[in-house]
Amino acid sequence: MIERAAIIGGGVIGGGWAARLAANGVAVALYDPDPKAPRKVAEVLQNAELALSKLTTMHVPLSSPVFAGSVGEAVADAELIVEAAPERPDIKQKIYAEIEAAASSQALIASSTSGIRPSLLQEKMRHPQRLLVAHPFNPVYLLPLVELVGGNKTAPQTVERAAAIYKRLGMHPLLVKKEIDAFIADRLLEAVWREALWLVHDGVATTQDIDDAIRMGFGLRWAQMGLFDTYRIAGGEGGMKHFLQQFGPCLKWPWTKLTEVPELTDAFAETIAAQSDAQSGNYSVRELERIRDDNLIAFLQVLKANRWGAGISLANWEAESRAGQKPPPISAAAPLLTLSRRIPAHWADYNGHMNESRYLECFSEATDAVMELIGADQAYVAAGNSYFTADTRLRHINEIAAGKVLRVESRILLAEGKKLRLFHEMKSDNGETLATGEHLLIHVNLQTRRASLPSEKVLSAAQNIAAVFADSASGADAG
Amino acid sequence: MIERAAIIGGGVIGGGWAARLAANGVAVALYDPDPKAPRKVAEVLQNAELALSKLTTMHVPLSSPVFAGSVGEAVADAELIVEAAPERPDIKQKIYAEIEAAASSQALIASSTSGIRPSLLQEKMRHPQRLLVAHPFNPVYLLPLVELVGGNKTAPQTVERAAAIYKRLGMHPLLVKKEIDAFIADRLLEAVWREALWLVHDGVATTQDIDDAIRMGFGLRWAQMGLFDTYRIAGGEGGMKHFLQQFGPCLKWPWTKLTEVPELTDAFAETIAAQSDAQSGNYSVRELERIRDDNLIAFLQVLKANRWGAGISLANWEAESRAGQKPPPISAAAPLLTLSRRIPAHWADYNGHMNESRYLECFSEATDAVMELIGADQAYVAAGNSYFTADTRLRHINEIAAGKVLRVESRILLAEGKKLRLFHEMKSDNGETLATGEHLLIHVNLQTRRASLPSEKVLSAAQNIAAVFADSASGADAG
Repeated sequence: MIERAAIIGGGVIGGGWAARLAANGVAVALYDPDPKAPRKVAEVLQNAELALSKLTTMHVPLSSPVFAGSVGEAVADAELIVEAAPERPDIKQKIYAEIEAAASSQALIASSTSGIRPSLLQEKMRHPQRLLVAHPFNPVYLLPLVELVGGNKTAPQTVERAAAIYKRLGMHPLLVKKEIDAFIADRLLEAVWREALWLVHDGVATTQDIDDAIRMGFGLRWAQMGLFDTYRIAGGEGGMKHFLQQFGPCLKWPWTKLTEVPELTDAFAETIAAQSDAQSGNYSVRELERIRDDNLIAFLQVLKANRWGAGISLANWEAESRAGQKPPPISAAAPLLTLSRRIPAHWADYNGHMNESRYLECFSEATDAVMELIGADQAYVAAGNSYFTADTRLRHINEIAAGKVLRVESRILLAEGKKLRLFHEMKSDNGETLATGEHLLIHVNLQTRRASLPSEKVLSAAQNIAAVFADSASGADAG
Repeated sequence: MIERAAIIGGGVIGGGWAARLAANGVAVALYDPDPKAPRKVAEVLQNAELALSKLTTMHVPLSSPVFAGSVGEAVADAELIVEAAPERPDIKQKIYAEIEAAASSQALIASSTSGIRPSLLQEKMRHPQRLLVAHPFNPVYLLPLVELVGGNKTAPQTVERAAAIYKRLGMHPLLVKKEIDAFIADRLLEAVWREALWLVHDGVATTQDIDDAIRMGFGLRWAQMGLFDTYRIAGGEGGMKHFLQQFGPCLKWPWTKLTEVPELTDAFAETIAAQSDAQSGNYSVRELERIRDDNLIAFLQVLKANRWGAGISLANWEAESRAGQKPPPISAAAPLLTLSRRIPAHWADYNGHMNESRYLECFSEATDAVMELIGADQAYVAAGNSYFTADTRLRHINEIAAGKVLRVESRILLAEGKKLRLFHEMKSDNGETLATGEHLLIHVNLQTRRASLPSEKVLSAAQNIAAVFADSASGADAG
C-alpha cells in the first residue's frame, strides 16, 4: 500500500480522491490555484466522512489533505500523483511538465480524465511510461469503478501497479484493453446523454420524465447487473443467442438517433454469446433471475425506508392495499396473525440463517400491526403520540434460512396507563416455534419525547384485546 | 380497481403482467398458442411469488391465470386487455381484430410493445380510442415503471383510466407526451445497446467489461437518480447550467458513435436548466448529494449482504483493511470497543429515531467483534464451528436519530463449556447510554446444527477476557 499521494485539482473529483485516499490512511498533498478549493474539498470530505461512517464500521476519521503552494511542492514526495484538472489536453500537459520537474521518476501519474486518450496526454512527457488514465466516478468515495487505460508509451507494469493500488483502496479497477476516446463507461453515458438531449430538444420528454424512466425501471437493474446479463435473462432459456435473434431486427429500426450500427453477422453474434457465456455461464438463467430479484427486492426496501424513487411506489402500494383490507375479527380461538413473510436473501448471515437482528425486525413489524389494531396508527403518530419499546426479551428456539416463510402470532399481555406488554411468537410454515419476544412499550408524547398517557380510545382498545386473550394465555413463555 | 383482465401472450412479459395483476387480486385469463406457455407462465409466477413474499408482508398467494383456448375466450369478460405478443405490427393488428370481435367496447386494450407507435397499432381498429401502449420493464412484478403512450386516435380518458389502474397496481405510470418510436426508456436503452455493440465489435471491451462498467459505477447512481439529477449534482453549486457550460463542448467530441447531436444553444440550455429546477429545485445540491449518498450506502450494504456486484468490492476492502489492523490490548481500565458507526438514513423509522431492530443489529456486530477477539473468526466458522444466540435482553434507555454516531462497549460475563454470556452497552458520542444488551450464546457444530464444545483455544481466550473484566464489572445492569 502506498503512503503518500498528491492530487492536482480540488474539484468534486479531486476532493473525492482526497477522501478515498484519506480513508485508507494515505497522506495527501493537494494543489489547486483556485482560492475556493480548500472550502470545496472540505465540503467533499465532510460528505465523505458522513457517508463512510454510515457505510462501514471500520472507518477512521478522514484527515484533510495538506494544501501545497505549487504543483512541485505537492508532488515532491508522492508515490501516486492524481491529476484531476480541467478537461483540456494543453492544461494537463503543462501540469505534467511541472510534475516531472519535481516528482520522483518512480511515481505513478494517473489522470482522472473522463475521456481524453492517454497517448495524447503523455505526448510531451520525459517519462511517459508511468502515466495512465485512472477514471473514477462521482462520488469517488463510494462508487468502486475506476477505468484504467494505458497509452502507446505506458509501461504494462504501470497499469499493473495502479490496479493493485486501486484494489487496495476498495475500488474495482476495470482494465480497458484498447485505447479509445471516452473509454467504456463514458461512451455509454455519452450515448444516453445525447439521446436524452434529443428527447428534451424535441419536446418528447422533460428532464424529470427521463430521470423517472431511468430510476423507476432499468436503472434499478443496472445497479446490480449490466446490459448483457440483463438481456441474457431476457433471452430466457435460449440465453444471449436467443435474445440477439429476437431483438436483432430492432437494430435497423429508428429507435435511437444513433443509426449507424454494427452489422449483426453470425460471427459477431457468436462472439457476443461466447463472451456472455464466459461471464455468466456458471449460472442458469433461472439462477440469474433469482439473484436479480433478490437484489431488486433489497433496493426497493431500502429506497422505501429512505422514502425515495421507486421506494415511494412500493410504500404507496402497500398503504393503499392495506387501506382496503378489513382487520380480522379478534377471538380467543385464534391468535392475532401480525406478520407473514418470506425471508429476503440479504437477511442471512455467515451462519447460513436469518440474522438475530431480523428476528427483532419481524417482531417490530408485528408490534406495528398491533398498533394499527388498537388505533395507534399513522394518524395517531402524526398527531404526536406513539409507543416506544423500553425492554425486550428474545428467546431463540429454532433457526430459519433465507427464502423460508415465517409468521408471527401476537398477544397483548397488559395495557395499563402508559404501559403496554406484548408477546410475539414466531413460527415456521410447518408450525414449529422459532422464537418468542416479550416487549414492554411505554406511551410517549412525540413533542416532549417523554412518557405520557395514551388516548382513552387506544387504551380501551388495547385492554379489550388483552381481555380476549387473558383466559387463553399459556403463562409459561409469556411470564 | 378492476376485477378481471386478459393477457394475450405468455412470455416473460405476459407472465410478469399475470403476476402483478394476481398480486392485486385481479382475475386473469391468458391466451397463448404456444403449448409451452403454461409452463413458462408458471415459472414466472413462481419467481414472482418468491420475490413478492420477500418484498412485502402484505402479500397474498398468486392465483394462476385461467388459460383460454382463444383470444376471444380470454377477453370476453375483461376490463383490461394486455397484449404482450411478438414485436410485429401485423401480428398485433390481427390480435386486435380478434379482441374487438369478442370484448366489451369499454375494455381498455394495452399493448406491451417496447417501441412500436400506438398510431400504427390502432390503424385498423373499430374502436381505436381505447388502445394505448403500456410498456413495462422486466421483471414486471418488481419494477414500477410503465410508459403510457396514446396514438392519434387514443381518447385522453383512455390514458387517464389506464394511469389510475397502473398506479393502483403499484406502478409508476410515465405519461409520454409525444408519440415517437421506442418512447423514452427504450430510446435510451437502444442508444446504450448500440454503443455497447460497437465496443464489443471493435474489440475495445468484452460483455463482462461493459456490465462491470455499468454496475460498479453509474448503474448504482441510476437506481435512485437519473441522468439529469446526477449531472445537476456534478455541476456543483452552479447546478445544471454550470454543468452544461462545462460539458457542452464534449458534445462535439467523438465520445460515442452517436455523432449527430442537438445544437446546445442558449435557449436550449435554458430549457434544460429550467426543467431541472422544476424537478429538483426544492433541494439544494448539497441536499441532493446527501440523499444520493444515503441511497448508495444502502445499495452497497445490501449488495454486500447478497455477496454481489459492487458489494463484493466493499466486502473485500473491509476484510483487507481489518486484516491489517492489530486488535487493541485488553485491559480492565478500558472497556472493549466493539463497534463505532454512524447511523445510516434507512435505519430510521416512523418515530424519527433508529428502529429497535437496529439496536440488535449493532449488538450483533459487536458480538462478531468479540468473536474475532476470541478466535471464533471466519476461519473457525469455515471449519464448522460457531456461536448462536439463544437468549437476548435489551433495555432501551435513550433514543438516537439517523446520522448520529454511536459506539458499543462490550464485556464477556461468562465463558463456561458451551455457554458464553456477553454484555454490550451502546453509547452516544457524548457518552450517554442508549441501550444495553445481555446475550446468552451457545456454541454450535455447524454440520449437526447442535450444541457442542468450543475449541480449547477459543474457550480459554474467552475466559481470559472474562477474567480481565470480572473485577471491574458493575453488577447492576449486567445481572
